[in-house]
Amino acid sequence: MNIKNVTITGAAGNIAYSLIFRILSNLPFKATDKINLTLLDIEQSQKSLTGLRFEIEDCAFSTLNKIITTDDSEKAFDHSDYIIMVGAKPRSKGMERSDLILDNAGIFKSQAETINNVCSASTKIVVVGNPANTNALILNYNTPKIPNENITSLMKLDQNRAKSILASKLDKQVKDIHQMIIWGNHSTTQVPDLYNCKVKTSDVNVDDNWIYESFIPKVQKRGGEIIEFRGLSSAASAASAIYDHINVIENGSGEWESLGIMTSGEYDITAGLMYSLPLKVNEMSFKVIDDIIINSKITNLIKLSENELLNERDIVRKFLP
Amino acid sequence: MNIKNVTITGAAGNIAYSLIFRILSNLPFKATDKINLTLLDIEQSQKSLTGLRFEIEDCAFSTLNKIITTDDSEKAFDHSDYIIMVGAKPRSKGMERSDLILDNAGIFKSQAETINNVCSASTKIVVVGNPANTNALILNYNTPKIPNENITSLMKLDQNRAKSILASKLDKQVKDIHQMIIWGNHSTTQVPDLYNCKVKTSDVNVDDNWIYESFIPKVQKRGGEIIEFRGLSSAASAASAIYDHINVIENGSGEWESLGIMTSGEYDITAGLMYSLPLKVNEMSFKVIDDIIINSKITNLIKLSENELLNERDIVRKFLP
Repeated sequence: MNIKNVTITGAAGNIAYSLIFRILSNLPFKATDKINLTLLDIEQSQKSLTGLRFEIEDCAFSTLNKIITTDDSEKAFDHSDYIIMVGAKPRSKGMERSDLILDNAGIFKSQAETINNVCSASTKIVVVGNPANTNALILNYNTPKIPNENITSLMKLDQNRAKSILASKLDKQVKDIHQMIIWGNHSTTQVPDLYNCKVKTSDVNVDDNWIYESFIPKVQKRGGEIIEFRGLSSAASAASAIYDHINVIENGSGEWESLGIMTSGEYDITAGLMYSLPLKVNEMSFKVIDDIIINSKITNLIKLSENELLNERDIVRKFLP
Repeated sequence: MNIKNVTITGAAGNIAYSLIFRILSNLPFKATDKINLTLLDIEQSQKSLTGLRFEIEDCAFSTLNKIITTDDSEKAFDHSDYIIMVGAKPRSKGMERSDLILDNAGIFKSQAETINNVCSASTKIVVVGNPANTNALILNYNTPKIPNENITSLMKLDQNRAKSILASKLDKQVKDIHQMIIWGNHSTTQVPDLYNCKVKTSDVNVDDNWIYESFIPKVQKRGGEIIEFRGLSSAASAASAIYDHINVIENGSGEWESLGIMTSGEYDITAGLMYSLPLKVNEMSFKVIDDIIINSKITNLIKLSENELLNERDIVRKFLP
């Protein structure tokens, strides 16, 4: 019997509410029969977390070995094999983006130090809470014990959205869209690149005007569109993307994937950023696809997203040892 | 390629939000590769449904063939193979329960007539929206084309909750609890009966005082407890129970199940009610377990729940042809 310790932060939020039941209904982790699930959230959410625990218990999932709810990071991360960092401080009214970045930087540095103390080098961490890439950067710098390749940030939601919007335009199904790349930051500067994209096995035939005036802005702002229509931010689709992300890094995929990873100078992008690059992911390991020809207009957009991340890195400089 | 038409009512609500993604991630329907999913909700929810459709498309589920959102019942039920009736009018402030029953009776009668017109006799219907048993009764009476055994109401959530509460008391896992029966109405008069229950293969050894003072009231009021702790009603656990219910009626189970079905005089309960009875469910068919010895105190409670349903039937008499 293989049991994995899985920790989810921000567990009282809407994304976690979609994610937890999805994970328990069909574990995405490799060679894992059951999980010990630890749910972390702030003190004010403990009552709500208890209610969530009741609902989880009421489902009688055979994949659940044990469940713990807590507001204590050390308890939550202790011997965790898989940490899904959904939690982040949301932007409040009148708050500057730089303040938001700094507040989260403090949280992620503190959590990173705890993780480095109580986890082993084999722990895997997926960062979802925004600003995800910079939070992941801080986490990476402050967990010297954990190798870079074990820390990734979520871009699968963006990749799925880009596929969905292109499929809708072409009146095709999302699963027929392949080799969709997202470059850069998980923000409105992200760069969905469909110059290498395939519909089934054919090239994508759309005009440049549609790419730059419709497609790219629509993907960049899909989150806002969901809020506009639903009155609530994406939760189930974000959870589904997290599930897919874990499934891909655990079990590999035959697809081109986009994950936020620590750069090391690929495609002339500054080394030492958490940046989304095109990857081939095999079971438990990944490799940057290094021979993609990038359209010059896309190159400019890639630089813009890189600059945004450099700027974010400057803001959080004091949290990077 | 087997494609099933699946309709979900109340699709803009919280239970549907948990249910839809769960279903698409792993279809519970027998021998079904893909589904055409139709989401029905009232006119005011159409914008929100569009946002939901975007999120579903963004997930790129390979099980989804086509998705339609609508407020038109005829369009929603047309040639549907499986109808999951999650929608019901909720109780508003100051409303009497009898008014709520009558309002929903009107809705379910109208939907039943549409279903009888546009569906085939093989359509299966699961009723979830409250008052679920009486809504299902009205639906049953007004769909003469559809055989009784194709219409069931959800009691799996109650059964799961009863198992969960007993497991917690005994410090066991929910999946180790077997033969848990729920009799009666999906309401606070429901009767969780653990006199036939097993923990693994052993009888349950708890005192009568705990059964009547703690266990039964706690199961009956579990929904309220979740609201108290979460500040929101059960959605993910309800969705998980719907998923389990469908999985059981499609694929069978080796367990004792509790489903709301049309009675025909079993255990001296009035015939012609939608009432939860203990069942053995095989692939695509079920059979009432008819040799259970019922404790005399439980018999009294079973009568109370029957009386509640008889009273509900009296209230909606004019909707029963």
